[in-house]
Amino acid sequence: MKGPNPGGAVVVTGGAGAIGSWLVRSLVERGATVRVLDNLSTGRRELLPTSPRITLTTADLSHPGPWSEQFAGASSVWHLAANPDIRLGTADPRVDVENGTLATFHVLEAARRHDVTSVSYSSSSVVYGQAKVLPTPEEYGPLLPESMYAAGKLAAEGLVSAYAHSYGIRGHIYRFANIIGPGMGHGILPDFFAKLRADPTRLEVLGDGHQAKSYLRTEDCVAAMLLGAGQAQEPVNVFNLGNADRITVREIAEKVVAAHGGRARIDYTGGTRGWVGDVPQQLLAIDRIQRLGWSPRYNSAGAIDRTIAELQAAAGSGRG
Amino acid sequence: MKGPNPGGAVVVTGGAGAIGSWLVRSLVERGATVRVLDNLSTGRRELLPTSPRITLTTADLSHPGPWSEQFAGASSVWHLAANPDIRLGTADPRVDVENGTLATFHVLEAARRHDVTSVSYSSSSVVYGQAKVLPTPEEYGPLLPESMYAAGKLAAEGLVSAYAHSYGIRGHIYRFANIIGPGMGHGILPDFFAKLRADPTRLEVLGDGHQAKSYLRTEDCVAAMLLGAGQAQEPVNVFNLGNADRITVREIAEKVVAAHGGRARIDYTGGTRGWVGDVPQQLLAIDRIQRLGWSPRYNSAGAIDRTIAELQAAAGSGRG
Repeated sequence: MKGPNPGGAVVVTGGAGAIGSWLVRSLVERGATVRVLDNLSTGRRELLPTSPRITLTTADLSHPGPWSEQFAGASSVWHLAANPDIRLGTADPRVDVENGTLATFHVLEAARRHDVTSVSYSSSSVVYGQAKVLPTPEEYGPLLPESMYAAGKLAAEGLVSAYAHSYGIRGHIYRFANIIGPGMGHGILPDFFAKLRADPTRLEVLGDGHQAKSYLRTEDCVAAMLLGAGQAQEPVNVFNLGNADRITVREIAEKVVAAHGGRARIDYTGGTRGWVGDVPQQLLAIDRIQRLGWSPRYNSAGAIDRTIAELQAAAGSGRG
Repeated sequence: MKGPNPGGAVVVTGGAGAIGSWLVRSLVERGATVRVLDNLSTGRRELLPTSPRITLTTADLSHPGPWSEQFAGASSVWHLAANPDIRLGTADPRVDVENGTLATFHVLEAARRHDVTSVSYSSSSVVYGQAKVLPTPEEYGPLLPESMYAAGKLAAEGLVSAYAHSYGIRGHIYRFANIIGPGMGHGILPDFFAKLRADPTRLEVLGDGHQAKSYLRTEDCVAAMLLGAGQAQEPVNVFNLGNADRITVREIAEKVVAAHGGRARIDYTGGTRGWVGDVPQQLLAIDRIQRLGWSPRYNSAGAIDRTIAELQAAAGSGRG
């Protein structure tokens, strides 16, 4: 069993991001020394606590580089760095090839060259495409991604699996539902808040609002990743990470509008999808990670409520 | 329904290879003008017939280049170019990233920029890894490739699917069993023939010989591809292409030795796999392509026998 070595050095790519920085803090609390690699395109230095056991190296993982020296002596790598915006990848197909597929390849090569024995990868439920089975189990196929972002996730999963079988690096693949929490510049809640800031009378919602997905809080997601990496037994271990319930975009819009005083009109652009590459109906089977003893603190609605409250507090303090 | 336009221009990458050149001949017989792109690393100019309706452009698809001009006015692209050697990809992990994943990305970009509306891709049964279900259906998951070669195939499938959903290029994905036939420099039969040429007294076989796989002749494979591309209705259509039966490496070794006079001793190196990344047990469910009216002319043993006879004839004529 090879999980994160609590007393040793670990690498976290994308460690200055909203999920990555939470993971970094959790790893440090468990006694690890954490070497963060981040290109700071969406990650932010301020999300990381000041600690002698955290170093931040600015790194472009889409190319090999001196950043790979950070892998020397590390026991594991948590590879979270990626383009977070599906629509950006559709507009420019190179984005996810370079920052998804090639970055993952270079990270795995660095791990191989430095004898790092464990890799944990943040994949996504979008690898399933629009699944015909809900809740979708990890065994679902065929995997037909509908966006370049999703294709990049699937390609990276395949690379993790190949490195596990060909070079003996244990792999942990986490297929995330929608992860929400503090520090995110992107996603449904920051988008809705930004729209209402620009025009408090009206909230435009992409699609018909019936899109229904599972939302998971960052802290629940990170707890599941740490648990999975510590207990997984196969060369490659795939875990869905989401909530057992889901919530519609319409309900989320109404919650956000209520939090802003309830006066804004909600306008739906129509259509079953929010955008090209959107997967409007998503619910993951999570019994595999639950069998390891994990259960989320917040359900989908609870995760939305908590994050809305945080965004309101941040807006009230002028940090919104 | 968008299949190959019988009267129009089509692009075939890897068209100077053993499977590609057979496909090129079949397309020309159906009235197409064929633009072949090949880096001639394993493909050979001599495999292509001389015809005013065939042009060959030497092209390195791992980088964008002027070769993409060959897509102008084409109705479809058949993307077969790839590294054919699993072991090469394990020795140097860049090989399949560059010649598999990136080449497919550049081919799809060329198709998108030139409004090519159909792409057919030669994937492989290795995307299944060592499947727990035999015969393995197209819906099998999780897809956990065990080699860089397989990871490159899975990545390319994901790209084809993303381009289909994001940019409207209809995709056809063919997951090949072991395809055998004339003109192949690589694979179990050319390898066994080369070994017996070097030492007629002894045939070394990698693994214990109990590896059992399905083998399909090139002409049966090409017929299935043409049928599938002409009749598939979904944005992305995945077809297994193999035989309903399989044959063991031991049986193949005995057939090859018998064809050489039966005097050579067969030595097994032992172990259930031939090499790192080998998938020793493989059998594909082929009812999806069969429902379109396809059935192979040769079963696995028949395909082996026919190819042995061709290799013998070639050796006898001094071309072996």
